[in-house]
Amino acid sequence: MTLDAKILSTLRGAGDGCVSGAELSHQLGISRTAVWARIQELRSLGYEIEASPHHGCRLRAVPDVLHADDLMSLVNGNHIIGRDIQVFQETNSTNDVVERLARDGVAEGAVVFAETQKRGRGRLGRHWVSPPRKGLWFSVLLRPNLQPPQATQLTVAAATALARTIHEHCGLQPSVKWPNDILLQDRKVAGVLTELAAEIDCIRYVILGIGINVNFSPSDFPAELRAVATSLQIEAGHAFRRAELAAALLRELDRDYDRVRRREFGRVADEWAAHCATLGQRVRIRIGDRAVTGRAEALDDAGALLLRTDHGHLERIVGGDVTLEK
Amino acid sequence: MTLDAKILSTLRGAGDGCVSGAELSHQLGISRTAVWARIQELRSLGYEIEASPHHGCRLRAVPDVLHADDLMSLVNGNHIIGRDIQVFQETNSTNDVVERLARDGVAEGAVVFAETQKRGRGRLGRHWVSPPRKGLWFSVLLRPNLQPPQATQLTVAAATALARTIHEHCGLQPSVKWPNDILLQDRKVAGVLTELAAEIDCIRYVILGIGINVNFSPSDFPAELRAVATSLQIEAGHAFRRAELAAALLRELDRDYDRVRRREFGRVADEWAAHCATLGQRVRIRIGDRAVTGRAEALDDAGALLLRTDHGHLERIVGGDVTLEK
Repeated sequence: MTLDAKILSTLRGAGDGCVSGAELSHQLGISRTAVWARIQELRSLGYEIEASPHHGCRLRAVPDVLHADDLMSLVNGNHIIGRDIQVFQETNSTNDVVERLARDGVAEGAVVFAETQKRGRGRLGRHWVSPPRKGLWFSVLLRPNLQPPQATQLTVAAATALARTIHEHCGLQPSVKWPNDILLQDRKVAGVLTELAAEIDCIRYVILGIGINVNFSPSDFPAELRAVATSLQIEAGHAFRRAELAAALLRELDRDYDRVRRREFGRVADEWAAHCATLGQRVRIRIGDRAVTGRAEALDDAGALLLRTDHGHLERIVGGDVTLEK
Repeated sequence: MTLDAKILSTLRGAGDGCVSGAELSHQLGISRTAVWARIQELRSLGYEIEASPHHGCRLRAVPDVLHADDLMSLVNGNHIIGRDIQVFQETNSTNDVVERLARDGVAEGAVVFAETQKRGRGRLGRHWVSPPRKGLWFSVLLRPNLQPPQATQLTVAAATALARTIHEHCGLQPSVKWPNDILLQDRKVAGVLTELAAEIDCIRYVILGIGINVNFSPSDFPAELRAVATSLQIEAGHAFRRAELAAALLRELDRDYDRVRRREFGRVADEWAAHCATLGQRVRIRIGDRAVTGRAEALDDAGALLLRTDHGHLERIVGGDVTLEK
């Protein structure tokens, strides 16, 4: 952890209490003057830190910004995801940034956030709307010991972690639309874009790109999306602190990635199925230039959807555009 | 085609006959002086072109170099593969060069050769020995409309094209070891490295990296490879012209890629099976940190190997290190 992360972590740990300058100086192994300089820096970033010579320091309020040190202090304890975190004010696409890291040999678990993306991507090259500070737009670098067909497990794990976080942290009831959409009241609130580089039988790296519409009001969406998209704020009726939400999600992602690594994908799939709006339904799936309809029966071991087609065959679907047939 | 490619193509078309300067000038749409300048340039590259005022020009001999224009003139007529060809004297890895082209949006069919690679790669990050002018080291950019699990079809198609070329062009009897090795007398003479960039359900691009040991003598191999590797020259007892061999192979690759694109993989797989040294054999396959043994029964639609394990299950294997059990 950096010094800033340690200071924020210590102040958070004290809750409403104060931490003396001497204590901070001791814990960080730097002089009280140096501690003071770091606190001034954090204040300039918007952290409201009360400091009195008698009582010491207290964290009164944190700004709604994403700060790498702060995020790292919040996810301290994660096994893999969030070991390194970077925050960009603006980038074309966080997936592109992480792809460069991947090619430079950076270890798995690195996470890149952007406050806004100029060219955020959804699946199949579609645009992903990502206005400044309205949501969480980030990408995670993974280097799983999986074969390429199993990469779908990671999409499912990410969707499961997203659903659990939105349920437990935000008190909302999300549903998952296979393979990668998270819905609230049938409108899309979050999504996962999984990109991979591989040989035929070995994954080099996977990039999980995740977007969550957090504090959008309806007018923040382009007109054509208002009927199909929503945000946590719209559904809950109040805004959410993005840093805490991001940290909660990184913790849940870490947990589900750990399950995949320990070959316990079955447990992830069970939890996923409990949230799933697709299983048991009649669906129409468009795959490239063809379409199949049938009943979504189950996920298989690799995370693919097993569809009982109208002809009675069980077809294994690794991806496509799903529409519920009502 | 470039001017050089057109000149070489025209001279080749005349066989032992001559083509007059006026004819070349007419066909190329440039002045006779300009034709003469190009011929001088080709001579400087080692092409022996006889030119007399009375009879015109005749191609007497071509050097054993790879020349992009020449290769393009030789594969003229291919649908896709070889529409653009580049030749490097030296590069780290032709797959890396093609990857940069892919990311720059270059169309499929581009081919990059190198006379030598400093860091040629085999599967799973292994080194591939590629000394100057002893072999063919090249990579092909493809953008197939396939789902990621079907990428194995392209490895099989490349192996099939390699085997057919070595059989028909070189008069040798190659066998294919699943998934990607071409053998002569049980020693490796060529290999395919398939790399892909993908979303879960859609391939962005595939790079086929192909290496063939052409004119190696035994002493050209590092000592540790002499027992397991061979070359066309060693097996045939004479050297081969690399440009003609390269062109023949690009033509065969184009043919098999066309079959895959027309959803006729079954025909490729049948031809592959006829060359295959793996099917019907008892094999041991190491996949990451586990190993399975059994009888290699067949290829499935996606190009994966169906293995009847010793426990009687039919296991679907997308890749691994195969050893024949004798």
